[in-house]
Amino acid sequence: MEEKVNKDYKQEILDIIRSRNSPKVMREKLEDYHSNDIAQVLPDLQLKERENLYRLLPMDTLAEVMEYADGADQYLEEMDLRKAAWVLERMEPDDAADLLKESDSVKKTAWLELMDDSSRAEIKKLASYDEDLIASRMTTNYVTLTSNLTIKEAMHSLVDQAADHDNISVLYVLDEEGVYYGAIDLKELIIARQDSKLEDIIVTAYPYVYGSERIEDCLETIKDYSEESIPVLSDDNHILGVITAQDVAEVIDDEMGEDYAKLGGLTAEEDLNEPLRESIKKRMPWLILLLFLGMGVSSVVSVFEKVVAQLTIVMTFQSLILDMSGNVGTQSLAVTIRVLCDEKLTGKEKLHLIGKEITCGTFNGLILGALSLVAIGFYIMVFRHMPVASAFAISGCIGISLVVAMLISSAVGTVVPLFFKQIGVDPAAASGPLITTITDLVGVVTYYGLAWILLLEVMHM
Amino acid sequence: MEEKVNKDYKQEILDIIRSRNSPKVMREKLEDYHSNDIAQVLPDLQLKERENLYRLLPMDTLAEVMEYADGADQYLEEMDLRKAAWVLERMEPDDAADLLKESDSVKKTAWLELMDDSSRAEIKKLASYDEDLIASRMTTNYVTLTSNLTIKEAMHSLVDQAADHDNISVLYVLDEEGVYYGAIDLKELIIARQDSKLEDIIVTAYPYVYGSERIEDCLETIKDYSEESIPVLSDDNHILGVITAQDVAEVIDDEMGEDYAKLGGLTAEEDLNEPLRESIKKRMPWLILLLFLGMGVSSVVSVFEKVVAQLTIVMTFQSLILDMSGNVGTQSLAVTIRVLCDEKLTGKEKLHLIGKEITCGTFNGLILGALSLVAIGFYIMVFRHMPVASAFAISGCIGISLVVAMLISSAVGTVVPLFFKQIGVDPAAASGPLITTITDLVGVVTYYGLAWILLLEVMHM
Repeated sequence: MEEKVNKDYKQEILDIIRSRNSPKVMREKLEDYHSNDIAQVLPDLQLKERENLYRLLPMDTLAEVMEYADGADQYLEEMDLRKAAWVLERMEPDDAADLLKESDSVKKTAWLELMDDSSRAEIKKLASYDEDLIASRMTTNYVTLTSNLTIKEAMHSLVDQAADHDNISVLYVLDEEGVYYGAIDLKELIIARQDSKLEDIIVTAYPYVYGSERIEDCLETIKDYSEESIPVLSDDNHILGVITAQDVAEVIDDEMGEDYAKLGGLTAEEDLNEPLRESIKKRMPWLILLLFLGMGVSSVVSVFEKVVAQLTIVMTFQSLILDMSGNVGTQSLAVTIRVLCDEKLTGKEKLHLIGKEITCGTFNGLILGALSLVAIGFYIMVFRHMPVASAFAISGCIGISLVVAMLISSAVGTVVPLFFKQIGVDPAAASGPLITTITDLVGVVTYYGLAWILLLEVMHM
Repeated sequence: MEEKVNKDYKQEILDIIRSRNSPKVMREKLEDYHSNDIAQVLPDLQLKERENLYRLLPMDTLAEVMEYADGADQYLEEMDLRKAAWVLERMEPDDAADLLKESDSVKKTAWLELMDDSSRAEIKKLASYDEDLIASRMTTNYVTLTSNLTIKEAMHSLVDQAADHDNISVLYVLDEEGVYYGAIDLKELIIARQDSKLEDIIVTAYPYVYGSERIEDCLETIKDYSEESIPVLSDDNHILGVITAQDVAEVIDDEMGEDYAKLGGLTAEEDLNEPLRESIKKRMPWLILLLFLGMGVSSVVSVFEKVVAQLTIVMTFQSLILDMSGNVGTQSLAVTIRVLCDEKLTGKEKLHLIGKEITCGTFNGLILGALSLVAIGFYIMVFRHMPVASAFAISGCIGISLVVAMLISSAVGTVVPLFFKQIGVDPAAASGPLITTITDLVGVVTYYGLAWILLLEVMHM
């Protein structure tokens, strides 16, 4: 019986490259490895060793390796200009475009000039799309057929195109004017009888998107259809490119990564190798905003100084109430943001969401309010040696404030992002600091206000 | 020139179903639409209308519609038992398995009994995998060839299997014992010359995973290779199933959704239609934990009551400092969680990460500390009519506390999740409340401690 295989190819590949073998033998050995595995080794190689690799790898393999490599532009710089251009020509146009976008190499223009016109044009076109548009994520690697072909002809045309287009699981059909007409599942073409008509296997109801659609608007639809690729059309219904399932996976990863970062108080996603200046830039905005909003809160708190002056014990529970209401606000925010990016909400659904969040917040508030009424009441009695009445009067204020604060916080955590979405501001980015501040205000005002009235005015503590 | 087409098929489909047309005409019209679009209208239909639909749709289409429909189990219940079983047989085995997992229908056992043995066995097998394992996300819909075939034979065998397996863009090759040997890119098979040997186009370096690997451990690898499908092997290297790019997209969506929810203080992701009880259940744990941790913080704050009693103005800035340090902690947490789920960290990288986060937090602290020293100093001078010295002494305390609090918070926000990961606890879920509490403590102690020493002891304010 076979043994489970350990998959650390890195060392194996390193050994091959560092072996004394002839280039020919090395190439043959390396061709047994996946381009991605070779790409992972590049950072661990000496410049000399990499230069050897560039020399001995076949051009197409090298291009594939560059598609997988992080910071591929640095590697291109290590090759001579013409070779770099050749590699770029052989890379997936969208990967090449991304590479050039990220690269700050002075050689960029030289590379582009040395490339053949068609590749250069294609890359420039792909690079020209706005990053929010779905067109910026498509690949131009796809196969088209014309609707008037027979099964046999279609199969031949496929074989011709397959040589330099590898997204063939779905084939796209154009009418005589080259307008998008429908799609064919390759499987259907393969099992179709030679004598049957192509028309019979064309799916005209196949999903498509327009290149001018914003990613966040059409991502859900594309996900729902979960096809292996979906065509991206120009406004006059010609095919610009296709979005493959791999592209979708990438887009989801990026989009959710962004929302995640924003919920965490960053303006954009960070990774391990992010330079310090970048990280600071991404975190500053929120913090500065919070600082000034926080001063606002402070001046409100100062209104209640006299309460604290007379009854300092109440201030010891401020952080408790603010943390709780802040957390409830964030919970509602997190839920709302996800709902907003998952579906288009009708007015009715929005009201439903708000209603649900408020109910949920209130219930939680009641449970926790009751809990803290009892727990904190005893805590004050036992550890602060206060009479029962006063102890539970204070813990009562805390309990009631928790209910009120959590009720309002959950409402705020839902309404604020909905509002920002409405006015076309990114809710994930804008909501956080505002919600923190509002929940702080609510918590402080209800708590100290209540303490003031109940404890000072009524009970004269 | 063609016009951009509006893609709201929902109404069109509704009209067709509600038309007085004969079943035959309806079926023909409906076949022009994507199963996903038909699935989207199901909730808007009356029971009677749905029952009509079940009758007139071809069994395979119905099965596809059920693959796309949300809450498909309710719809299956509306069909008679035998029909439901037929539909389940025709669904993708993994979708059918998921459906049955989620369904709480009493009919479930009946459905399973009525299905043919092979489908039942397959579904039960798929349902048996632990949800953390990659095997639970695979599909058993794939094509295999044996290595000893000729190109021509391989093509024929493909055509035979393609009829009921539609993931054909990658074909998997087995040796005589049925052990996984390698993969063939369908494109290569199609363009291969009839006389060439199959052996020449088999990629033995094609990536694979073992069914027993945990999703979070192998997801990144699968993403990196970005192939259209990757084989899932049993521990003795037989193929159990494949992970398609669509599966990957789904997995990423789920995994990141979970982390996002946890960062937002929820124990699991929620959606719009979540019942209230569920939502409360998902939010309670954090809140209760926070409540008790918060009481701990309160008892620490109470140590500083005498500071506040003598100089109440200092307490008005408590919320400012706690919000800032809390936010910095969350920023570091968010970054660390993402890094942890993106890559396996070596001890060195962990230290690097911690170091970077602390530096970043300190820099931000210095900037904001300086900012608040000046801004708050003037604020106190102007609005609270305090002498310059005292005003800036107080804002000095705030400034310094900010630096210290943000330094420590960023360290805590990084170390805590790293620690939880180390001891095998989900860092995304566990870190939040702990970090809030620690940052609160740090903030309170530094701020009031400093105020005590500098303002009371030294300056005798």
